[in-house]
Amino acid sequence: MQITLLAHTPNPDELVAAAARICYRDTTAAELLQGEEENLSRKLIAELFASGHTSTFEHVSFTFGIDGLSRVASHQLVRHRLASFSQQSQRYVKMTPDSEAVVVPPSVKANPEALTIYQDAVRTSQEAYAQLIALGIPKEDARFILPHGHSTRLVLTMNARELHHFFGLRLCRRAQWEIHELARQMLALCREKAPVLFENAGPSCIFGRCGEARTCGKPYRDMEELLRETE
Amino acid sequence: MQITLLAHTPNPDELVAAAARICYRDTTAAELLQGEEENLSRKLIAELFASGHTSTFEHVSFTFGIDGLSRVASHQLVRHRLASFSQQSQRYVKMTPDSEAVVVPPSVKANPEALTIYQDAVRTSQEAYAQLIALGIPKEDARFILPHGHSTRLVLTMNARELHHFFGLRLCRRAQWEIHELARQMLALCREKAPVLFENAGPSCIFGRCGEARTCGKPYRDMEELLRETE
Amino acid sequence: MQITLLAHTPNPDELVAAAARICYRDTTAAELLQGEEENLSRKLIAELFASGHTSTFEHVSFTFGIDGLSRVASHQLVRHRLASFSQQSQRYVKMTPDSEAVVVPPSVKANPEALTIYQDAVRTSQEAYAQLIALGIPKEDARFILPHGHSTRLVLTMNARELHHFFGLRLCRRAQWEIHELARQMLALCREKAPVLFENAGPSCIFGRCGEARTCGKPYRDMEELLRETE
Amino acid sequence: MQITLLAHTPNPDELVAAAARICYRDTTAAELLQGEEENLSRKLIAELFASGHTSTFEHVSFTFGIDGLSRVASHQLVRHRLASFSQQSQRYVKMTPDSEAVVVPPSVKANPEALTIYQDAVRTSQEAYAQLIALGIPKEDARFILPHGHSTRLVLTMNARELHHFFGLRLCRRAQWEIHELARQMLALCREKAPVLFENAGPSCIFGRCGEARTCGKPYRDMEELLRETE
Repeated sequence: MQITLLAHTPNPDELVAAAARICYRDTTAAELLQGEEENLSRKLIAELFASGHTSTFEHVSFTFGIDGLSRVASHQLVRHRLASFSQQSQRYVKMTPDSEAVVVPPSVKANPEALTIYQDAVRTSQEAYAQLIALGIPKEDARFILPHGHSTRLVLTMNARELHHFFGLRLCRRAQWEIHELARQMLALCREKAPVLFENAGPSCIFGRCGEARTCGKPYRDMEELLRETE
Repeated sequence: MQITLLAHTPNPDELVAAAARICYRDTTAAELLQGEEENLSRKLIAELFASGHTSTFEHVSFTFGIDGLSRVASHQLVRHRLASFSQQSQRYVKMTPDSEAVVVPPSVKANPEALTIYQDAVRTSQEAYAQLIALGIPKEDARFILPHGHSTRLVLTMNARELHHFFGLRLCRRAQWEIHELARQMLALCREKAPVLFENAGPSCIFGRCGEARTCGKPYRDMEELLRETE
Repeated sequence: MQITLLAHTPNPDELVAAAARICYRDTTAAELLQGEEENLSRKLIAELFASGHTSTFEHVSFTFGIDGLSRVASHQLVRHRLASFSQQSQRYVKMTPDSEAVVVPPSVKANPEALTIYQDAVRTSQEAYAQLIALGIPKEDARFILPHGHSTRLVLTMNARELHHFFGLRLCRRAQWEIHELARQMLALCREKAPVLFENAGPSCIFGRCGEARTCGKPYRDMEELLRETE
Repeated sequence: MQITLLAHTPNPDELVAAAARICYRDTTAAELLQGEEENLSRKLIAELFASGHTSTFEHVSFTFGIDGLSRVASHQLVRHRLASFSQQSQRYVKMTPDSEAVVVPPSVKANPEALTIYQDAVRTSQEAYAQLIALGIPKEDARFILPHGHSTRLVLTMNARELHHFFGLRLCRRAQWEIHELARQMLALCREKAPVLFENAGPSCIFGRCGEARTCGKPYRDMEELLRETE
């Protein structure tokens, strides 16, 4: 999996603080971006977050390029409706049947017997795909035989309010491992560009209370621990 | 594929006409559902549709149960963001490896050689799934080896405005065949319950002009032709 | 203010429980609505709510007719984006300048001196509206002189997930009094039709913890107290 | 009315073209922003627009500061649900009763008799507001007496797909004059920053066919004519 930050709204922390000021103070919109100090942003954003008044976070958005994500994870990812997606089409783009093309779950990688079974079955399905194409079956039908783990590429845009929601859900230890890793890399990129806005983004075991009926029992100590994890 | 209408807003045609009357006439909301005649609904709804003023269609929604749809099609289906989905979880529900569990595209069914290749590869992947489970690999990881064509179940709710949009897109001849068939069955169920509201729902070749850069060249003659098609 | 329940998805509690079962159990969608017992619905819905897994609540929606709401409140109301609105048009419908047409805030009603000032200014603006119309000014421009408190009518549809969110926000004691009263009447109607689904709907001081930076200091004891309040 | 472009996604034309390439070509997401030529963007975006495949337009967003808009227009504006708004609060910010604070419709400005009636009624309502405040009525209730035409300030963010939709609706000659003027100024700002993306943004009389049941009968000749109009 490779995540690239393709674009983002410039000066995210400042813009959110500016939008908050229009709501509560007697200032014109035209003057909003003049003379705001960093300390004020930090205090204002922390207050907004603490009270759940995060609608101003929507003015800022981030666009990511994602390579090497399985279609298992992308199916889950596109369930986030407050986001924009452009995904590689399996109807129009022919899938390359190389060994890199299918994601291998860590639990399979760690078990040599399982790994052999997995790789053999992947090979069978890729050969079947190639044979079906050769027989004249359209790409959009031949792909029915490719495994769920087949990788895909996409461009994803979310605003900072939805990103907060996304990080809260998907950085939970009980989230599917692949979307957890995606979220971890996305958050690391966001924190570089908007340190104040994403200071408190993460799972509820760190920033609140776990709400799951069945908790994992291993709450994260802090964001350092979470961000240090490797794929 | 089996589609069941699980629920819908009662009296859909009447409710949409009532909502339109609140906008343009001097009538109270409390009296809206009294004394409306069917002819008036028909004329009013036709006018709304013709002018593109279809926001009132949102007050009415339909809920469908869907069995036997491939995860190829469900991945595409959940891209409709103005809709609500509850889908069978492959993390929590163990997949049954029977021959019914995987959707076979018509182009594959029609080609005996392709069908054999397809069915063999399906069997290999299902056996691999069972072996991975037996080795202690979690369900959520073992499913990576199942084919894209594996079937899923879901409950789907859309309002009538989004349904119109959905039918417009997905009843195009160039839509993926499985989502086209889903749309066809859904529309047949909607027309039974709200004949006025869905009288003009369908592809742009019937109700307008085809907007595709590359058209299919075989526009539908009318809705009769489209609805008569079998899977 | 007069609130009428115009329509709702039939059997709301049962439908939500059915949608939840498709996610976690091996049951077909076609059989979902058969043989569910009421106790199971109650337990299942309570679990969903407690874990924050309320996406299944979206399959059920409620449609309200609203008369006599000020445009102050309707401006706020339409900020809820996961909802459908049809509102009386001031561009097309001529406003009747009677004394019932403008909402009087309780704080003004309770102060005789304020009430006189208020009513005099209302009369002035209504007379100006009539004079502007008589001079040939279009309705859509003449209304600029009508007071914010002028009443409006609308039809509103929300699904049960958004209704929960709405009741959580707007039944807070710090919400604007008019939208609070609207929410109170809407919730009373919802509880009649879907007692299980809305059992835990209400402000966070009752169902959780107040998250406001500046709390009102007067948490509600229970829903009985809240629902008993009169306009 | 004063419109300021506060922020926008950098390189809008290039980003949209890049997102389109991920869908239809075999290119990695990480390399998307390398080596694209301007001519390609123009051709690709024109094709997307012509076919109605504008989902890639969502990756780009624009944030505007708006001063001096009436609450008549802002009530209408916030009905666009695929947008983000931060609006000056009349509950927390005291309204200044000066003559600049209320928008005067052109039809009223052009009629001396109407203007006098309008200005007198504005003054009465502003005096009533001040008196109510002095009597201890809360700001959130006193504002009920202010006229609909009272101006407001807000920060608005929309993505380019919704902006296209917005310009299509609101640049129609039959749109309310104030939101028409807002759209005109917004489009002029967008065209400076993303000339390719907004080349075809505007009313259907210019870019298609008028769909209104009752047309205005005065279709715009071209965008030059439309953009030249003054408030």
